[in-house]
Amino acid sequence: MYKTIKTDITDKIMTITLNRPDRLNAYTELMGDEIIAALDYADENDEVRVVIMTGEGKGFCAGADLDKDASIFQSDIPIEDYRDGGGLVSLRIYELKKPIIAAINGPAVGVGITMTLPMDIRIASDNAKMGFVFARRGIAQEACSGWFLPRVVGISKAMEWVSTGRVFPAVEAKEHGLVSRVVPAEELIPTARKLAAEIAENTSAMSVALNRQLMYRMLGADHPMESHKVESKYIYWTGRNADVKEGVNAFLEKRKPEFTLKVSSDMPDFFPWWEKREFDQ
Amino acid sequence: MYKTIKTDITDKIMTITLNRPDRLNAYTELMGDEIIAALDYADENDEVRVVIMTGEGKGFCAGADLDKDASIFQSDIPIEDYRDGGGLVSLRIYELKKPIIAAINGPAVGVGITMTLPMDIRIASDNAKMGFVFARRGIAQEACSGWFLPRVVGISKAMEWVSTGRVFPAVEAKEHGLVSRVVPAEELIPTARKLAAEIAENTSAMSVALNRQLMYRMLGADHPMESHKVESKYIYWTGRNADVKEGVNAFLEKRKPEFTLKVSSDMPDFFPWWEKREFDQ
Amino acid sequence: MYKTIKTDITDKIMTITLNRPDRLNAYTELMGDEIIAALDYADENDEVRVVIMTGEGKGFCAGADLDKDASIFQSDIPIEDYRDGGGLVSLRIYELKKPIIAAINGPAVGVGITMTLPMDIRIASDNAKMGFVFARRGIAQEACSGWFLPRVVGISKAMEWVSTGRVFPAVEAKEHGLVSRVVPAEELIPTARKLAAEIAENTSAMSVALNRQLMYRMLGADHPMESHKVESKYIYWTGRNADVKEGVNAFLEKRKPEFTLKVSSDMPDFFPWWEKREFDQ
Repeated sequence: MYKTIKTDITDKIMTITLNRPDRLNAYTELMGDEIIAALDYADENDEVRVVIMTGEGKGFCAGADLDKDASIFQSDIPIEDYRDGGGLVSLRIYELKKPIIAAINGPAVGVGITMTLPMDIRIASDNAKMGFVFARRGIAQEACSGWFLPRVVGISKAMEWVSTGRVFPAVEAKEHGLVSRVVPAEELIPTARKLAAEIAENTSAMSVALNRQLMYRMLGADHPMESHKVESKYIYWTGRNADVKEGVNAFLEKRKPEFTLKVSSDMPDFFPWWEKREFDQ
Repeated sequence: MYKTIKTDITDKIMTITLNRPDRLNAYTELMGDEIIAALDYADENDEVRVVIMTGEGKGFCAGADLDKDASIFQSDIPIEDYRDGGGLVSLRIYELKKPIIAAINGPAVGVGITMTLPMDIRIASDNAKMGFVFARRGIAQEACSGWFLPRVVGISKAMEWVSTGRVFPAVEAKEHGLVSRVVPAEELIPTARKLAAEIAENTSAMSVALNRQLMYRMLGADHPMESHKVESKYIYWTGRNADVKEGVNAFLEKRKPEFTLKVSSDMPDFFPWWEKREFDQ
Repeated sequence: MYKTIKTDITDKIMTITLNRPDRLNAYTELMGDEIIAALDYADENDEVRVVIMTGEGKGFCAGADLDKDASIFQSDIPIEDYRDGGGLVSLRIYELKKPIIAAINGPAVGVGITMTLPMDIRIASDNAKMGFVFARRGIAQEACSGWFLPRVVGISKAMEWVSTGRVFPAVEAKEHGLVSRVVPAEELIPTARKLAAEIAENTSAMSVALNRQLMYRMLGADHPMESHKVESKYIYWTGRNADVKEGVNAFLEKRKPEFTLKVSSDMPDFFPWWEKREFDQ
């Protein structure tokens, strides 16, 4: 079905593999569309609890496919209608109800690293390298990295990486919180799957979905009262539903819980509690 | 006076000790009310310069008291009137004029750790452990942690801890900035008191109160001009008052300052400079 | 021309040296004015790609010049007209189109450290020390540090440093992200110049200017869509202009790029894309 990615669902984990290995999985418009379609599927299907994204072959994603020139950055539509493709991917990840883990198996530069910023956990193989190379190509940064990068690594490191355009090794990424772990290449996918399984096997899909949207939305809120308003509804609602009874009973009985609420159909009627943010220039 | 906490004021430091040791100081609605009452006292009384919160016995706070079932999360009032109790505690801490230090002496899970997020400094004993366990119990996160947790530890680690619901040791908490120090158990309270004394003995209560509210409010401000507006008033006002004369003289004379401004009665007339945020669903 | 600072432009790097070494470069109102004038020059002149700020002699900046008393903090104008001088410097840095590096060569306390918070990179010599000493002098914090400090080092460390007013060594500053590197004194300026040269030699001044303003503005934005809107314009515009063609060609030809767009005259007509924030009490 997909031409630029592969997907697999095993043990409640969907793996999205960027699949243009002869181009180090360089990003194309079609790849962006296919990633979004795969994430739509993940959100709508309860057999997916966690998403992992990785790359086929030696690279994770080499950035926008430059091929022979800079034409990928050109468009003939009016400027006010133009939308950055990487940004559409990042915004889709921001809206996701499932946690998503980037397993960075090789070079991740340009949109190859910026599109991982809205992901929840980033881990890398020890041969991976990253680069916010935009200023070395004469282009602007994208994929909502203007919003996400300072929130993920802090404004100072964000400015250093973006202003130099430097390509740096995974160990520098870990030192400054861009990735949380660096592991030998052969341990990358097992490590990502173990993390994903820790979520899938122990937690309520409903709790995770509600909490994920709460925390990302609260990144942009101006007062903790805004969190308190939403959390009060959340606690009231989850406190009356099936998952809390199972969760507390399992805890008191020292066994694994078997949660039954479905993200596909059981979301509370107050969700989403925000107004959709429109694109308007 | 209190049933679930103990308080002590010595050397200008108020210690609030959660005091249900047979339940690992598990949180109850009454405990929330009593914490808020103690913080009200701290704010109104000038003999309190700093607050320390710790737990009696082996635990800090084991989270909401589950006792036999999940009934603590249930309420019969309409959803729009329901307010999360942990959130009320967090919002009270947010409004505090005195610095507050969490001395985490053992397990701190659920609301036991989320209510420490609006505290200024968190230190832990080496046998402490923490967990944002909500998703393992089928419940939503609370105590304004949707707002505070990403600001304290970053969105990526926040998402990992909340999505796995994992209980983790103090050393992992320190690695990611959830606590600033991990010390042997017997050094925990001495370390907290030493930090508190460093504040109480050297600083102006007025300066500390103004700065605390400035920085927490600015976490939600959209432009540094908002800080400049407030700081310009602050500097103008403190620059004419007694504490600055004493502070500068003490500095020039190389002695400890004796500040006289009182937070209870001497706050400037432009304080508070924000509008109260109402709870409205 | 300047009385309290020196400036030098070599290899596209402007160095601003605070120049009151007999007073450890203590800050005066004139120094603030001269820093702002130098930054205006940097922004308007394309031969400046990066700014470095350092101090003459043994200090970086010892804070507001107290001389004999606290009179520097006093003013006879009405409170609603008073503007904190350090805040004016910080706001000017916030608006800058060029990256700026603080090379902290000795004590940096009070406004001496707060005015570096809006700078992009801070590095320190191993004999440097820092202090947010305001509360020990009975004064309020300033220079927009209420907004910047929690964003640079996190709210918890910000509260600890501001509430204790402690003076701490460069190594503690590095541990908590206030500076990114600590080097021997004799390597400080070479390290700063090497970082500056990495930017000046490899990147498009236009890309760097657009990205800098994007990320600082997005620190105050409430949703990644706000970043997507701006980035979509940025990408559309940079994708049609000379620098991207040169950048991509240089990359494909494995040579250094020679960018030609000028920040002084070639900014896109949608820049600035924000409304000026006014000072109004």
